[in-house]
Amino acid sequence: MSRPTLAQLEAGIVAGDRASLARGITLVESRRADDAEKAEELLQRLLPRSGGARRVGMSGVPGAGKSTLLEALGCRLLDRGHRVAILAVDPTSVASGGSILGDKTRMPRLAIDARAFVRPSPSARTPGGVARRTREAMILCEAAGYDVIFVETVGVGQGEVAVADMVDTFLAIFVSGAGDELQGIKRGILELVDVVAINKADGGGALRAKAAARELSGALRFQRPRHPAWHPRALAVSAQTGDGLDELWQLAEAHRDTLVRTGDLERQRAEQRGRWMWSLVEERVIGAVRDRVARDEALAGLEASVVRGEIWPARAARAIAAAAEG
Amino acid sequence: MSRPTLAQLEAGIVAGDRASLARGITLVESRRADDAEKAEELLQRLLPRSGGARRVGMSGVPGAGKSTLLEALGCRLLDRGHRVAILAVDPTSVASGGSILGDKTRMPRLAIDARAFVRPSPSARTPGGVARRTREAMILCEAAGYDVIFVETVGVGQGEVAVADMVDTFLAIFVSGAGDELQGIKRGILELVDVVAINKADGGGALRAKAAARELSGALRFQRPRHPAWHPRALAVSAQTGDGLDELWQLAEAHRDTLVRTGDLERQRAEQRGRWMWSLVEERVIGAVRDRVARDEALAGLEASVVRGEIWPARAARAIAAAAEG
Repeated sequence: MSRPTLAQLEAGIVAGDRASLARGITLVESRRADDAEKAEELLQRLLPRSGGARRVGMSGVPGAGKSTLLEALGCRLLDRGHRVAILAVDPTSVASGGSILGDKTRMPRLAIDARAFVRPSPSARTPGGVARRTREAMILCEAAGYDVIFVETVGVGQGEVAVADMVDTFLAIFVSGAGDELQGIKRGILELVDVVAINKADGGGALRAKAAARELSGALRFQRPRHPAWHPRALAVSAQTGDGLDELWQLAEAHRDTLVRTGDLERQRAEQRGRWMWSLVEERVIGAVRDRVARDEALAGLEASVVRGEIWPARAARAIAAAAEG
Repeated sequence: MSRPTLAQLEAGIVAGDRASLARGITLVESRRADDAEKAEELLQRLLPRSGGARRVGMSGVPGAGKSTLLEALGCRLLDRGHRVAILAVDPTSVASGGSILGDKTRMPRLAIDARAFVRPSPSARTPGGVARRTREAMILCEAAGYDVIFVETVGVGQGEVAVADMVDTFLAIFVSGAGDELQGIKRGILELVDVVAINKADGGGALRAKAAARELSGALRFQRPRHPAWHPRALAVSAQTGDGLDELWQLAEAHRDTLVRTGDLERQRAEQRGRWMWSLVEERVIGAVRDRVARDEALAGLEASVVRGEIWPARAARAIAAAAEG
């Protein structure tokens, strides 16, 4: 198959063709300079067709049952007529060099269903890089007609913050165990969540999960809410048996409906776009400063003195910044 | 008491006077522009006197027993003739507006011992800001003669990465419980740790902690090591009874000795200084670009179009970066 033109790619994506969508995402993930230009053009063209999906972030440590929950919830949504895309952000793959989320067999039913689209995480050099490509993939999925997009991440590092900053609703999955365990996962992340699922509420774990959900919902009421009109809530679910999944989705919908009603959804998305632009500005501007320092003997010497411990880093930073601003 | 001059402050810190040290740290934590200049001068003067401490990062979620362990380990080190400083980085305090680590009563014996210095985390607007001031406080503590510095952080978010990037040895504290629990905490952080303490190896938990330590040590051998000559190891300890604390410190010392022997310590510190300088360059340069965009109608209009969703953020970022460099 020959390489499609940009117009062909655009038409294919808009028509909902999965092969075109996959090719489009490969294009935005590419590191080649000429691809970057094409990707930007493609994204600009598709921009008016984006924004229509429910964007749901999903975070949970390995073992929390994220894949099982996504598979079960995703299939229910397909049955209700939705088209579901699942994208992954995996900041931990940066250091380890591989992606733990790349395995489509985690969600066997969704992976083979023509109404679903599962895209593993690209391996990237920077967490920001992964998040950026996931954002772009999300735009393409929306242009292709997917109306529910899950962006999943493992519950560590910057991934959660990056994901929370690209979705409408942020959902975290915990598992009840010892009281400590829930404790360990929830710090920090509780300031990001809109909805929490306490998974594995089945068999002997059902009561414990329900108690944990109740306790957590109570605790969440004392948090400063991200949106004045919405208090994050926790719900016991079982991805295995399906118990609570409908209620979980209702809760996610209720969150989004609240944002729509109050105008917060548009405000939140507008802020996300602004922050995103700034992160790209940063990437470009700092890249240029680095190039400049590499070429300029005096500035490079300053950096070397800092590295040797002779000059206070703040002092050298001031000089380099002044030179860069010219 | 009148405000000391810079020379008085410097002399006081170098003489090991705790009140001067506390004042110096308050100066570097200040947000006032004229203080920033003084702080930079003070740090530049003290730079030659810094670098002498064992810099140990310590991470653990609330409930892991970090304070108890720091108190017990710190007192042992004082008894051996060390001077111990404890600094805190608390990225979670940013959103919640308060510091959870600010409570000196967590370490009652260290807090009143003249040979120790406990500094609560400043509340700051950015995680980078907290980490920056902690770095600067570390330099001051070294100049004041503290030869063991613990930089502690809760086990979430960017705090760990920031702390790992300012210390020689990074120590994480886990608690064994359900297998899942250890699982939940360790992802991502395992790529940062040099030494792991499995705490609460006492009473009924002793065997479980030892098994967890053994298992984790085995798992850590399969990780790509941060230093070719050192494989991270886990050790069961009890901060409560003191069991294993001497061995834990020996392990931390063995790690540092390995870095010294291989030359990795100097390399690591040099890289840390370079990265630190770049993070400060970034702060300054991007701040200037933001000011420029705010003043320039055309650029501000571009940003507004991005926020409204009309222009692809990457496209606007390219134009703003070009104008900033122009």
